[in-house]
Amino acid sequence: MEITLKAPLDMHLHLRDGDMLRLTAPLSAAHFAGAVVMPNLVPPVKGIASLGAYAERVRTAIEEVDGNCAFAHYMTLFFRPYSEEELAAARETEVFFGIKLYPAGVTTNSAGGLVDWSAAEPTLKCMEELGIPLLVHGESHGFVMDREAEFLPIYRRLAEHYPKLSICMEHITTAGALRLLEEHENLCATITLHHLLLTLDDVVGGSMRPHLFCKPIAKREEDREALLEAALSGNPRVMFGSDSAPHPREAKECCGCAAGVFTAPIALPCLAALFAKHDALGRLQAFVSDNACRRYGLTPPQKEITLRDEPMHVPASYRGYGQTVVPLYAGEEIPWRVVKDR
Amino acid sequence: MEITLKAPLDMHLHLRDGDMLRLTAPLSAAHFAGAVVMPNLVPPVKGIASLGAYAERVRTAIEEVDGNCAFAHYMTLFFRPYSEEELAAARETEVFFGIKLYPAGVTTNSAGGLVDWSAAEPTLKCMEELGIPLLVHGESHGFVMDREAEFLPIYRRLAEHYPKLSICMEHITTAGALRLLEEHENLCATITLHHLLLTLDDVVGGSMRPHLFCKPIAKREEDREALLEAALSGNPRVMFGSDSAPHPREAKECCGCAAGVFTAPIALPCLAALFAKHDALGRLQAFVSDNACRRYGLTPPQKEITLRDEPMHVPASYRGYGQTVVPLYAGEEIPWRVVKDR
Repeated sequence: MEITLKAPLDMHLHLRDGDMLRLTAPLSAAHFAGAVVMPNLVPPVKGIASLGAYAERVRTAIEEVDGNCAFAHYMTLFFRPYSEEELAAARETEVFFGIKLYPAGVTTNSAGGLVDWSAAEPTLKCMEELGIPLLVHGESHGFVMDREAEFLPIYRRLAEHYPKLSICMEHITTAGALRLLEEHENLCATITLHHLLLTLDDVVGGSMRPHLFCKPIAKREEDREALLEAALSGNPRVMFGSDSAPHPREAKECCGCAAGVFTAPIALPCLAALFAKHDALGRLQAFVSDNACRRYGLTPPQKEITLRDEPMHVPASYRGYGQTVVPLYAGEEIPWRVVKDR
Repeated sequence: MEITLKAPLDMHLHLRDGDMLRLTAPLSAAHFAGAVVMPNLVPPVKGIASLGAYAERVRTAIEEVDGNCAFAHYMTLFFRPYSEEELAAARETEVFFGIKLYPAGVTTNSAGGLVDWSAAEPTLKCMEELGIPLLVHGESHGFVMDREAEFLPIYRRLAEHYPKLSICMEHITTAGALRLLEEHENLCATITLHHLLLTLDDVVGGSMRPHLFCKPIAKREEDREALLEAALSGNPRVMFGSDSAPHPREAKECCGCAAGVFTAPIALPCLAALFAKHDALGRLQAFVSDNACRRYGLTPPQKEITLRDEPMHVPASYRGYGQTVVPLYAGEEIPWRVVKDR
């Protein structure tokens, strides 16, 4: 079996910075036509200048490895109160995609996130008027298994209060989020590969597995099944976003491991295998590209990626520039591989 | 503030074997008058001869460090179908305490556990007749957060089917288990220190913390509160059992860490601090000794342990005999300490 994907997109990607960026950006660029790049650096990307400079570092990191690689880096700003002028200027910036909102402290490098929702109102209103997408890490500070469910009323309030604002519920993990999605046209959602594959049982049900630990944490089997059904069905407001989140090996395997699963280099083969297994290979194009292009009016580079049901051995780690990152399924065999990219 | 505990008992303890036993047994013997020693060695303790030999190794390990240490080791057999003769012989064995039942595969070294409940019937009937306590690791093979709840109907069935059998629900972690406890006089329960302190949030809510990972996994705040209330209230069918479970550091901090929290050397100071904080210091004696003595008719050695609200620095690890074990609160300060033992 074989499938050729047109312009696959990763609508939620962490590339980090410095040497980690140099290692990871080319791995995404090899398989994807573009990606929405998250702004939670240290310090976060909070202005047009730093957004432009980060975009340039992403471009350079990819060019270093492949000078002819076509890869659209859709850059994001870290949410803070922005003035109308700033937002207008952002919108005019070619590489700018949208604004990512983190409630303060909910995940990696989000300490500077939102504390006071009322202070966010003018910015959200202006984003709505200017047509700037809002991307949200939707978790409360509550009990780890309830954080997304507790955040759903905030999504609902945002959707109702800003009916023209394009709101993306990022990396959803629950059946409840999918039910909410159906209620509001201005909501869309990204789903990761690992939340299609894992439940909390995989993370802490047997032994404790740091490389499967992420935020939001993987939930119950019924949640995983609902996410999978939404992805397989071609639901037009559901898009693939890997949330591939590299951490140095030592930050994952130490006591107190950092949150994030690194999936970028195996995401498309794993998705192809998953969709094929469920007889839904024909709807993979929608999930990994068409839904996002339609939703956001994107015209990514004309890259085609062909995948085939031939086994791929996943490296024990990806190394380079002094960095070592361990991917999902490290050292294991997965049933599909990329056979051609152009 | 100060409290002197008479004959504190740890009603659920893992000492392992070999060098790990030599390291950990004296640490428990220093603070406790006795402990119920779990049989899940490799291979498990499944006969009188191996029980006697293990008891002797426990005794020797303690004597090596302190020749005058009075410590009652209440030994347990690993559940399997036992004949009436075997059970009668066990009952005549001075160090024998009861039989620990593990459903197959639910925790460390439990691969040889129970698969078929119907095959267990004659043994359970005979234990009931002979007055041999049954200690149970009560978890199903379901979703990690539901495993104890799913096992409760089995506890109920056992309690109803063997009304004279003394059944201990070991290391309970949920409010539901406490509600069941109230329904049947022949049920009792042990509660660990760590389940009085932790929820799943501590394990995977922030970073992932291998030294807080155990089975059953820590549950929700409302569960923790219910357990704490049961312990503080002096509920006569609730007893302290640390489930202190040493693993070599490398088995905890590797990828795929083993389940178990090592608390033996800090259990009494932490319990004293917790009970004092809740104005319940007067009921600690019941939780750590009297309830168990009454329930099981125990007469442990006359050891007294005095604790005071003076800070204790918890070692980063306990080392010896080539073993390194990391305790709960490693490297931190806890507010109470043992000041005298005799």
